Amino acid sequence: MNVSRRIPLGLVGGGPRSLIGGVHRAAAALSERFELKGGAFGTDVSRNRAHARALGLDPERAYAGLDEMLAAESRLAEGERIEVLAVLTPNHLHYPMVLRALESGLHVICEKPFTMTASEALELERRARDGGRKVCIAHTYTGYPMVRQMRAMIAAGEIGALQKIDAQYYQGWINAAMHDAAMRQSIWRLDPARSGPSCCYGDIGVHAFNLAEYTTGLRIARVLADLDTFRPDNALDVDGTTLLRTACGVHGVLRASQIATGEENGVQIAVYGSRGALKWSHETPAILTHLREDAPRQVFTPGQRFNAELARTASQLPPGHPQGLAEAMANLYRGFADAIHGVPGAEERFPGIEAGVRGMRFIEATLASSRAGQTWMEISA
Amino acid sequence: MNVSRRIPLGLVGGGPRSLIGGVHRAAAALSERFELKGGAFGTDVSRNRAHARALGLDPERAYAGLDEMLAAESRLAEGERIEVLAVLTPNHLHYPMVLRALESGLHVICEKPFTMTASEALELERRARDGGRKVCIAHTYTGYPMVRQMRAMIAAGEIGALQKIDAQYYQGWINAAMHDAAMRQSIWRLDPARSGPSCCYGDIGVHAFNLAEYTTGLRIARVLADLDTFRPDNALDVDGTTLLRTACGVHGVLRASQIATGEENGVQIAVYGSRGALKWSHETPAILTHLREDAPRQVFTPGQRFNAELARTASQLPPGHPQGLAEAMANLYRGFADAIHGVPGAEERFPGIEAGVRGMRFIEATLASSRAGQTWMEISA
Amino acid sequence: MNVSRRIPLGLVGGGPRSLIGGVHRAAAALSERFELKGGAFGTDVSRNRAHARALGLDPERAYAGLDEMLAAESRLAEGERIEVLAVLTPNHLHYPMVLRALESGLHVICEKPFTMTASEALELERRARDGGRKVCIAHTYTGYPMVRQMRAMIAAGEIGALQKIDAQYYQGWINAAMHDAAMRQSIWRLDPARSGPSCCYGDIGVHAFNLAEYTTGLRIARVLADLDTFRPDNALDVDGTTLLRTACGVHGVLRASQIATGEENGVQIAVYGSRGALKWSHETPAILTHLREDAPRQVFTPGQRFNAELARTASQLPPGHPQGLAEAMANLYRGFADAIHGVPGAEERFPGIEAGVRGMRFIEATLASSRAGQTWMEISA
Amino acid sequence: MNVSRRIPLGLVGGGPRSLIGGVHRAAAALSERFELKGGAFGTDVSRNRAHARALGLDPERAYAGLDEMLAAESRLAEGERIEVLAVLTPNHLHYPMVLRALESGLHVICEKPFTMTASEALELERRARDGGRKVCIAHTYTGYPMVRQMRAMIAAGEIGALQKIDAQYYQGWINAAMHDAAMRQSIWRLDPARSGPSCCYGDIGVHAFNLAEYTTGLRIARVLADLDTFRPDNALDVDGTTLLRTACGVHGVLRASQIATGEENGVQIAVYGSRGALKWSHETPAILTHLREDAPRQVFTPGQRFNAELARTASQLPPGHPQGLAEAMANLYRGFADAIHGVPGAEERFPGIEAGVRGMRFIEATLASSRAGQTWMEISA
Repeated sequence: MNVSRRIPLGLVGGGPRSLIGGVHRAAAALSERFELKGGAFGTDVSRNRAHARALGLDPERAYAGLDEMLAAESRLAEGERIEVLAVLTPNHLHYPMVLRALESGLHVICEKPFTMTASEALELERRARDGGRKVCIAHTYTGYPMVRQMRAMIAAGEIGALQKIDAQYYQGWINAAMHDAAMRQSIWRLDPARSGPSCCYGDIGVHAFNLAEYTTGLRIARVLADLDTFRPDNALDVDGTTLLRTACGVHGVLRASQIATGEENGVQIAVYGSRGALKWSHETPAILTHLREDAPRQVFTPGQRFNAELARTASQLPPGHPQGLAEAMANLYRGFADAIHGVPGAEERFPGIEAGVRGMRFIEATLASSRAGQTWMEISA
Repeated sequence: MNVSRRIPLGLVGGGPRSLIGGVHRAAAALSERFELKGGAFGTDVSRNRAHARALGLDPERAYAGLDEMLAAESRLAEGERIEVLAVLTPNHLHYPMVLRALESGLHVICEKPFTMTASEALELERRARDGGRKVCIAHTYTGYPMVRQMRAMIAAGEIGALQKIDAQYYQGWINAAMHDAAMRQSIWRLDPARSGPSCCYGDIGVHAFNLAEYTTGLRIARVLADLDTFRPDNALDVDGTTLLRTACGVHGVLRASQIATGEENGVQIAVYGSRGALKWSHETPAILTHLREDAPRQVFTPGQRFNAELARTASQLPPGHPQGLAEAMANLYRGFADAIHGVPGAEERFPGIEAGVRGMRFIEATLASSRAGQTWMEISA
Repeated sequence: MNVSRRIPLGLVGGGPRSLIGGVHRAAAALSERFELKGGAFGTDVSRNRAHARALGLDPERAYAGLDEMLAAESRLAEGERIEVLAVLTPNHLHYPMVLRALESGLHVICEKPFTMTASEALELERRARDGGRKVCIAHTYTGYPMVRQMRAMIAAGEIGALQKIDAQYYQGWINAAMHDAAMRQSIWRLDPARSGPSCCYGDIGVHAFNLAEYTTGLRIARVLADLDTFRPDNALDVDGTTLLRTACGVHGVLRASQIATGEENGVQIAVYGSRGALKWSHETPAILTHLREDAPRQVFTPGQRFNAELARTASQLPPGHPQGLAEAMANLYRGFADAIHGVPGAEERFPGIEAGVRGMRFIEATLASSRAGQTWMEISA
Repeated sequence: MNVSRRIPLGLVGGGPRSLIGGVHRAAAALSERFELKGGAFGTDVSRNRAHARALGLDPERAYAGLDEMLAAESRLAEGERIEVLAVLTPNHLHYPMVLRALESGLHVICEKPFTMTASEALELERRARDGGRKVCIAHTYTGYPMVRQMRAMIAAGEIGALQKIDAQYYQGWINAAMHDAAMRQSIWRLDPARSGPSCCYGDIGVHAFNLAEYTTGLRIARVLADLDTFRPDNALDVDGTTLLRTACGVHGVLRASQIATGEENGVQIAVYGSRGALKWSHETPAILTHLREDAPRQVFTPGQRFNAELARTASQLPPGHPQGLAEAMANLYRGFADAIHGVPGAEERFPGIEAGVRGMRFIEATLASSRAGQTWMEISA
């Protein structure tokens, strides 16, 4: 096992104007564990070639589509051909593409929401397990050192028994489209055919859900959701508050919005226990606040010797040197590479396919609850 | 009309160990509009006299109880006898005491929750109206300059049409009692006989509700609440999340907790509109953040010339000089004094009896919703 | 000794448009230890009477000037006549007025800078000592609970041996006048005849100096100052940086400005020791940050049981309830009242006349250093 | 001109335990403009080979030293052989290595401080100019979008004529060594033979100086410095405050420390002008605060359409997605690549060799000033 070997990586999606494409390329590079070899970035092969050249890749490995890529790569030598596929396409393509990649024996990194339905996610989980392939869901926020510190401290009992969860993901970027019908047409996330049954909860609510389960180690068992499509001529939710109840009875609330005008990327998680609390906000990702019942609050920062191992291994720089979203994603890539190499403990350092399944179950339960007039819905385990 | 005349004030409740007593005395003094003349601070008349002496009051005006006070004061000369009574006793005494005060022709300042039931509040509203007396509910947060700036900016359309409300009031002080049965017995707010039907929502949730209505100028029409008593042997709510819907269909959420361990007095309000948003947090009361759709966020602070008049009149100091809770309460006292003197516009500068009625309706609807298994309940107008 | 007796207080200065007058009235009232009885608020006796009436005072005790006030009050009964005089006039009047008050047997509260020269301050110190009278200098920032917590923690060795001091006081309010000659004429602080030899350092630099000495318990022994009058036609400093050296050799820096455009009232103090550091900023006065060498930083807030006694006695409210400038000043008033009553330990709770002497020595050394071309100047002990 | 061509890059220094090595590799990768090809990472060739393998490089291109690398690379084909050398070794090796690289026709990226003396820096400047080679000094902080926004806004006159500069760089990491003689021996930055004449000012003070000149566009003309070696047995400065004066007479202050215990990487810059001010702190790098004379303060964040072009081109992500130190460095790498390709305007996007010369002049003037007992020293233009 050579854990520092660069694993050949391919992309589907992530063309020149794709923001998420840049994040995944940056994460792969920063991880120093993957080497991007090629991709089917878009549907125009000549633009794909130009993109490959701009990225310093062999333009022969810019493909017209996934099938062509899988076929061509399979003919390359081991060590050269791609072993991992990152799926960055619109949501409706995740399921068929991940399925094809797994069938071709690849490991997969997939953007969220994982699929269009929970049953698709379960099907992919079965396929991955049967084929011995690994899947990483791009819940990037779990890659921040202070989110990992939070998980480790909760697991170690630092705040006692949990008694309250408060998760938030507020953005304002869809607001303008809500007030401009023409702009509304141009946003694929508002189109059920490409986005699936949810916009806000599929895009960002599911991140907040994942963060709640990752940091607490608890399972959300029931939800009661109040979603808002905001406009009569808008099909998908752009805002919604969800009441949460864990299997062990802890109350919680999850707030997500894409019409929180002026909010940039307001991800927050607060967890309260019998002895204290932990709070993290994405706007200041290097700060983890630890409220204590009978002592001054503490502020944890990345890069400190006294941090938990799960946080220490997520920091590449000394304290006080900011690391951002790409570094958080790179931590997922590192964990995923380690898992592929069989390094013990790696599974805690990236969101696996189970996170994808959980996310889809959450989205479905949320939509069902809201549609039923805000009633409690179970999330199957 | 001499608006600077010091109005004689009496207290019921607010003994030597009462925190809220100190806040009301400070507010009255800071307002420079009232003069504390006497009170029935507790039930022990000799201790009441000692307290009066410690406060520099005439010990003859320390009374054994409200009835004695009202009788004795009525025999004093006009200008000397109390004209306003501040009611600072436990909740179950608010209704009978406010009623007696109104019957005696006094104006009343009353702590929240106003009464035990909405019907009591309505009864007092009728009595006050019939007798031409004024009532101020101690929703202190509406006295902060930046909360008033928020109200003024929303009213002026600065953030466009409203589309989302998010109110919070998180404290941790009851947490220790939840984990210590003996301590639990000692807290009157957990005793239904004195506290009424709610602990968390009666004590603090109602503040967040008032803040939402005061800043937005909207009416919350429906609620769906998920309250938590946390312990089987605890009768009253200590935590709860409530979904909100305004009469005009705006979605919102209100989160309140007394078991948010480590939180001190975390009052927050955020309101999102079609063109921007306004956010305020009690931990940094001198900051009002204005998010804008297409421009850098702005930060308003008290004492600036360019602030709205409603905020300017709530600041007694130049920018950068902190003012706190007592100053916020003093702004209510000033507004109330002005209202008594008939100054136009004064009604916007203190929460009137209608706020008391609204609050009780909200508490009742919230409790009913939660009891019914988290279903929507109307708040009558 | 009746420590809760309200001590009769008189004001000189502090008329209807005076900001500092309002702060002192508020502090006296909040302290619940003083009762304002009268004053020579300005030079127009009929306006003084109107002001007295507006404040609920006996208009007979509004005087045309200090001499008249001292004479008239001396004829009143003990317990009724003023025992303490608060001197709130422009700087050049401090020395003669404090002198007259001491000669009349009064205790004195005086605004800063204490006098026009250090020798005047020394003379007053001698007079006060000889007459057994007490003097409080209005260094309000030492009244904030978290400043007191900082002093107590440093004294207790919490950050080890001190090795670096960084004090700041940045304001922007004089900037406009620097760019508008007419406005410049209207500001008495820029007039040497009324302001004395310094504007910026007399008004605010001396606060930062006092804060450095109060929190550290060290004496600044030498300074090297670089002051700036900014305009050729402006006589007094409006900005300046000063290098500090304590008697024991600790390096430090003090930065003060009134042309830090846009700054409101940016007072900050940071002290670094061998084991940690403490930092406080007036913009968030309820936060004291404790940096530690090998542990997460801690955040202290007022009102907590575990705070030092010096901080606990400066908080009248539970954690999370903001207290502001007037409350800080009230803490000085309480300490001063206790000192008058002979309560042990009271001297640590207000800046005594020695602080006034130290401040004048600092201002003189600073001006001399800057005038000599930025060379080191000693501050006599 | 193919501006997206990946420029072959070599490293000298930056071995497996080097933090700065990781930052430069990350920056090169994130820039998508360079491709790391090889290096002389340390002095042990077999460890260098292992490091190359771990980085996915051809181990043949891991060299025993710079001379060997330059010789071997020169024999490779154009397009394959390195064109740019990043010099990451201890300070004393910068001059000879940069000289050799320039002589070999390479462009150079060099860590700061650029050299041991200003005359060395001038010599390299002459060589680079004569040879038509470009040099980038790793003043990483100028790569943050909000630092660039600050420069652009000042240049555009947004805060008017400048009147005050306040720069800070506070760290605490050397504190422990100051209190532990054995640890002191192990830190090369404290060894004059390797570090040069300065520790604190060579390592971090020079960053603050560069930031002051980059953001303001002004030249610091004179300094008066008060440096502190803290221990009699410690040769180099670990702390120091410097008074600044620009050529046009603006006053300023620069504070740097490595014994500010508990500070992580506290870089700050504040610039005050006649109409407003701009403030930036590295702890929250995505926030630029704009204080305005007569309007609410504004907060700029990266990724917004309305930002200045110099800032927009430094953001690769939408608003609210944190970017860190490596991304800032990558912005320097991008600017440097563009400059090599001759893209107009590129020179504003990385600190050129002139910044290296200015930095050395500043360090020398600072040391001379402090040594002479804190007197003013000129910085030659």
